[in-house]
Amino acid sequence: MSWLESELREQPAALARLLSRQRSNAEAAAAAFRRDDVRYVLIASRGSSSNAARYAQYLLGRANRVPVMFATPSLYTIYEQPPSLDGAIVVGISQSGASPDVASVLAEARRQGRPTLALTNDAESPLARQADAVLSLEAGEEHSVAATKTYTNSIGAVALLFAAIGGDGAARAELERMPEVLERQIELSFATTPHLDGYAAVTGATVVARGVNYGTAHEAALKIRELSSLVVEAYSPADLMHGPIAAIGRGWPVVAIAPAGPAQESVTSVLAALEERGARVLMISDSESALARADTPLPLVSGVPEWLSPLTAVIPAQVTAKRFAALRGLDVDNPAGLRKITLTR
Amino acid sequence: MSWLESELREQPAALARLLSRQRSNAEAAAAAFRRDDVRYVLIASRGSSSNAARYAQYLLGRANRVPVMFATPSLYTIYEQPPSLDGAIVVGISQSGASPDVASVLAEARRQGRPTLALTNDAESPLARQADAVLSLEAGEEHSVAATKTYTNSIGAVALLFAAIGGDGAARAELERMPEVLERQIELSFATTPHLDGYAAVTGATVVARGVNYGTAHEAALKIRELSSLVVEAYSPADLMHGPIAAIGRGWPVVAIAPAGPAQESVTSVLAALEERGARVLMISDSESALARADTPLPLVSGVPEWLSPLTAVIPAQVTAKRFAALRGLDVDNPAGLRKITLTR
Repeated sequence: MSWLESELREQPAALARLLSRQRSNAEAAAAAFRRDDVRYVLIASRGSSSNAARYAQYLLGRANRVPVMFATPSLYTIYEQPPSLDGAIVVGISQSGASPDVASVLAEARRQGRPTLALTNDAESPLARQADAVLSLEAGEEHSVAATKTYTNSIGAVALLFAAIGGDGAARAELERMPEVLERQIELSFATTPHLDGYAAVTGATVVARGVNYGTAHEAALKIRELSSLVVEAYSPADLMHGPIAAIGRGWPVVAIAPAGPAQESVTSVLAALEERGARVLMISDSESALARADTPLPLVSGVPEWLSPLTAVIPAQVTAKRFAALRGLDVDNPAGLRKITLTR
Repeated sequence: MSWLESELREQPAALARLLSRQRSNAEAAAAAFRRDDVRYVLIASRGSSSNAARYAQYLLGRANRVPVMFATPSLYTIYEQPPSLDGAIVVGISQSGASPDVASVLAEARRQGRPTLALTNDAESPLARQADAVLSLEAGEEHSVAATKTYTNSIGAVALLFAAIGGDGAARAELERMPEVLERQIELSFATTPHLDGYAAVTGATVVARGVNYGTAHEAALKIRELSSLVVEAYSPADLMHGPIAAIGRGWPVVAIAPAGPAQESVTSVLAALEERGARVLMISDSESALARADTPLPLVSGVPEWLSPLTAVIPAQVTAKRFAALRGLDVDNPAGLRKITLTR
């Protein structure tokens, strides 16, 4: 079995470990979000961690009703004109904790006396050393270059933080059911991969989602792209309609992520325009009606609250990424020219 | 002559009109950015206007040293959980001013008593009606579905605002020289289009830039994509290295935007990795050494300060987009299935 598959299958156990070990850390970290002088959240990240940051943008924004923004590291590193962070709580997300650009944003926040939090799989990393509080991802060592369990645990850590900020016992209970749900999702998704054999000759794909799953769309695109070397991209349906749909033509695969919930209709509303162009739709959903409209249904286990659907919705994308790589004869443990840790300024 | 070309060639005149007519409006709007209670800038936008917003993220961030973030309209429209905007000044950018999602963010800001500003080409639009202050783009009617002069004037309006916030006479003088510089850039870029005939058979492209030109990369990608129906995408070099480079293989065109300035080295530093993969590099730059490394040099007129380089750097991309469409036998005034005004929630 590849490292990729073994770590993909380890996700339920990794998530359970995070939830049991980091509960009190999450509660300690949550206190800083409730400070009177916090008016917004600033997140620094790269790669898969930026997709966890997109999840945080929706979840933390709703938890304490403050806007969440992403740092522009070049203002800190290249232009050396860091902004005033008055009003900010600053969060760094990095699996390795090693990328200098992410650590530099937290270092500046600390210089300015602002509260800082690191979500990282390495509690001794340069990023962790810049942070007042650390949520350890508890994913264990990840060998695969393409992140699976560290991504899941990054969004799990964001969900844990959301429940802690809100002091929301019901949310916590929902989250604690997710390792068992993930187990079922992995079985279900591996059972549906045979559907993918018709996509052996594609040259790329577009992933569409909105709201809490906007980050899932980016993670799905990145995962398929890393493993298959296909050109895969992500859009919100609203952004797609403002021009980029021009490139979607006959036979082009579109992965739509549309679990039941407030954002579903925004995604399904663009299906007609996609069908008119002859796109082939792969639908990730727990909803019968949405799955019925797809060329390729990629079902989700039902009964998951929308705010936690990014945990299940990424699984069919991971399995699709693995299958696309196999269809192209590629080794998932050696994706073209990538390294596990990337250092950028 | 197509509407696209005629409006592309009208850009110097449109920019001159903006600068002469909107100076006092920009100065009035700038006052709100200097309020003591402003801790960050929140921008709502879609399509080309989001690329102007990316320019604003760097420029306004440096002008008054506060972070600039982008709104997540679905929190306002789909989830109906708008964040508290305490500390914000809220800017809407929309050429038509008609998209409900952008106007809804300004409406919420107004409900919360926060200062609002609209950058729009229609001063009577729904967006303009939600704003305390309006910077009119002064682009005149734009017939082409693919925006050229309204984009240029959007970033021109951001530059005008930057100079006004800083009370920076030297910056204003630099900006006022730009219509004449744009004139020369358009001539230069049309003279270099023959270089593009070798790209007739490509299926897509990747555009790379950083810092003030990160938005230019997205606009270049969107413009080529809209007109040629090719799959074109944009990345910062740092993000590209964190996984997405896996999809770049032999013969794939990479448009690198690297004018002289602090961000240049970050872009040129990834050229070796791209060359190793056999990518074909089209280089938009005013620097001899950068142009010399490219398969296809797309020169910029020299002597433009880096902060204004997005005004010139988009021109070779617009001309490239037009040429790619011609190579594919497409009508630039009727891009595949697009409409001039897109209404999204």
